[in-house]
Amino acid sequence: MNDAVLTLNAGSSSLKFSLFRKDGEDLIRLADGQLEGLGAAPHLVARDGGEVVLERRWDATTNLTHEAMLSELIAWADGQAGGEGVAAVGHRIVHGGAAHWRPALIDGPLLDELDALCPLAPLHQPHNLAAVRAVLAAHPSLPQVACFDTAFHHGHAPVVDRFALPRDLEAEGVRRYGFHGLSYEYVAGRVRELAPELAAGRLIIAHLGAGASLCAVKDGHSIDTTMGFTALDGLMMGTRCGALDPGVILYLLQAKGMSAAAIEDLLYRRSGLLGVSGLSGDMRALLASEAPAAREAVELFVFRIAREIGALTMSLGGLDGVVFTAGIGEHAPEIRRRVCERLAWLGARLDPAANASGQGPIQAKDSRIALWVVPTDEEAMIARHTADLVFRAG
Amino acid sequence: MNDAVLTLNAGSSSLKFSLFRKDGEDLIRLADGQLEGLGAAPHLVARDGGEVVLERRWDATTNLTHEAMLSELIAWADGQAGGEGVAAVGHRIVHGGAAHWRPALIDGPLLDELDALCPLAPLHQPHNLAAVRAVLAAHPSLPQVACFDTAFHHGHAPVVDRFALPRDLEAEGVRRYGFHGLSYEYVAGRVRELAPELAAGRLIIAHLGAGASLCAVKDGHSIDTTMGFTALDGLMMGTRCGALDPGVILYLLQAKGMSAAAIEDLLYRRSGLLGVSGLSGDMRALLASEAPAAREAVELFVFRIAREIGALTMSLGGLDGVVFTAGIGEHAPEIRRRVCERLAWLGARLDPAANASGQGPIQAKDSRIALWVVPTDEEAMIARHTADLVFRAG
Repeated sequence: MNDAVLTLNAGSSSLKFSLFRKDGEDLIRLADGQLEGLGAAPHLVARDGGEVVLERRWDATTNLTHEAMLSELIAWADGQAGGEGVAAVGHRIVHGGAAHWRPALIDGPLLDELDALCPLAPLHQPHNLAAVRAVLAAHPSLPQVACFDTAFHHGHAPVVDRFALPRDLEAEGVRRYGFHGLSYEYVAGRVRELAPELAAGRLIIAHLGAGASLCAVKDGHSIDTTMGFTALDGLMMGTRCGALDPGVILYLLQAKGMSAAAIEDLLYRRSGLLGVSGLSGDMRALLASEAPAAREAVELFVFRIAREIGALTMSLGGLDGVVFTAGIGEHAPEIRRRVCERLAWLGARLDPAANASGQGPIQAKDSRIALWVVPTDEEAMIARHTADLVFRAG
Repeated sequence: MNDAVLTLNAGSSSLKFSLFRKDGEDLIRLADGQLEGLGAAPHLVARDGGEVVLERRWDATTNLTHEAMLSELIAWADGQAGGEGVAAVGHRIVHGGAAHWRPALIDGPLLDELDALCPLAPLHQPHNLAAVRAVLAAHPSLPQVACFDTAFHHGHAPVVDRFALPRDLEAEGVRRYGFHGLSYEYVAGRVRELAPELAAGRLIIAHLGAGASLCAVKDGHSIDTTMGFTALDGLMMGTRCGALDPGVILYLLQAKGMSAAAIEDLLYRRSGLLGVSGLSGDMRALLASEAPAAREAVELFVFRIAREIGALTMSLGGLDGVVFTAGIGEHAPEIRRRVCERLAWLGARLDPAANASGQGPIQAKDSRIALWVVPTDEEAMIARHTADLVFRAG
């Protein structure tokens, strides 16, 4: 039988994928890969552990379609999976709007509905859906599953998701949704396995990567998060501004005469660590730099995380632990150290050696709150939801 | 000698004023008043305590100039003050930009500089300066003093005032300034008189009125605040949205095709309590209403205050007390009760009877943090700064 699941996580210029095979109740990971340089000089690579199991390059003049590339990827996955090949493709879909949050088989009407949400997530949704369409064109009968990045935040108290705007806007979907939900769901699940007592408490998970947000988790459920209607709000990010006085945008429009497209480019692609440092949106480069502006960018990144931890702690009514995940959260002990320093008044104490190792619990013995590093795995979550839906339905 | 000070606090359709007379080191308040219906049917009234000491109405067809009205006001103040009349006019000026924060005698070059800041505070600055110009036209030699609402926040750590935006924007003044500074300065001074130990600690002052913000005060100095570049950011207000995902504004521009002017109107005048309730921007009306939307608006107002208290508590590194002030802060025990309920995890316990009386300390004996009500008085602060500058200089 078909028992393999291919996961796709499509961005503007790259696409991440993973291949899993169902083995009883488990999912065995066969490979992870990336398709980069979409629209320019595409480069496809997949690895099983460290070993490269697939590599293809096309030059910029090939004019290869999205469909053809994904067709090639699926053909490889079919071969790699053994048996009868790929049973379903699972996608990370950023926005499901107010109507969709549960993982869902994608059909024509759903695709149309998700298309209508593109204005709510202009930087992510169109690319997510382009990948769905490319698979549909290449393999019309292959089941595809939408896994929404908003899903884990579904069920917030209304007051948490409400903006202080007229109700007609809320009725048309202008409210806080929250993102990085697949990551939070995975990490919350891992905490439940690793530290069940902690998982029953008041947790903040810090997903710190090129995109960054926090999620307040109580007894395993998201009760608040820093991202809102879009993935632009909340924490400072690699190139995104995070929370910003709405009056600044009015100023950019009215006093500086900037267009909406220019403001979108500014806030999504030229702000954050890149904008403040003037050097790079990559935390590794900034931590390695001696430039004052690099130091200031890192300082602001940490300050904003601490401030938002304060806000979410209020939502939680106290704090039992902080879990760091994603690129920076997993691999930058210096950032963890500085964030925890600002939590000292709450009783947070890091164990320096544990923090340097960056694995599991990293708090000191006398810490009043738990501090952890838990690697995230959005692809595993997509595969699990997809398998649950397809194999249960099949 | 001239020893009276007239204070002016000019908004879009009304102007508040107070008259003080210097008596040794003290300032004696002679009257408070308002000039309402500017541009329509102006109505001027002043009171000494409860007693009306001046009242004038003009009908809508009078076409009275701003200068003529202020000339009339100053003539009355001259008579009221006794002696040789008004020595100086002190103004609340919302924005001093990056260069001005100390109280300053207004001359031509300063007026030009403040004029250039109008795009940074389009709803307040033009009206503030119109009042300065009207007095200048009517009484060219009368000293006028600018008292900036940003002043109390001057001296924040750079990380507090920085947006995660490119540095060229910061260089042109796009950063967080904070407002309600005259109110915070007055209240912080009163706390120093009433409870010196508390004033030496980590305080949050909640200025809750039609405009609303919080200020984190440590040892008497502002170290963080919820308003930013403009008076639109932070808490939910009567008709203002407060903090808003910047992606919402991009959506309003790109998906809904709204103009900047329409968005400004939406966010400043049709959001906040008014927008969410659909009924009123006045907290008294909402607290008296049984409508679900009114209850939801109040709930959101409280939730957002609590969330921001969490953020500022992180800036302070802990919390020793909360001081409520301004219209809602002084007169809505129900709002204070609900905010303090959310602070229970920090050890906040209200004394219900003290809260109902709304005077001075309102915490219960077993509260781990202090809770106070301290009435604000921006006019006293403007008068004090103006007197300090004019009589010291004179």
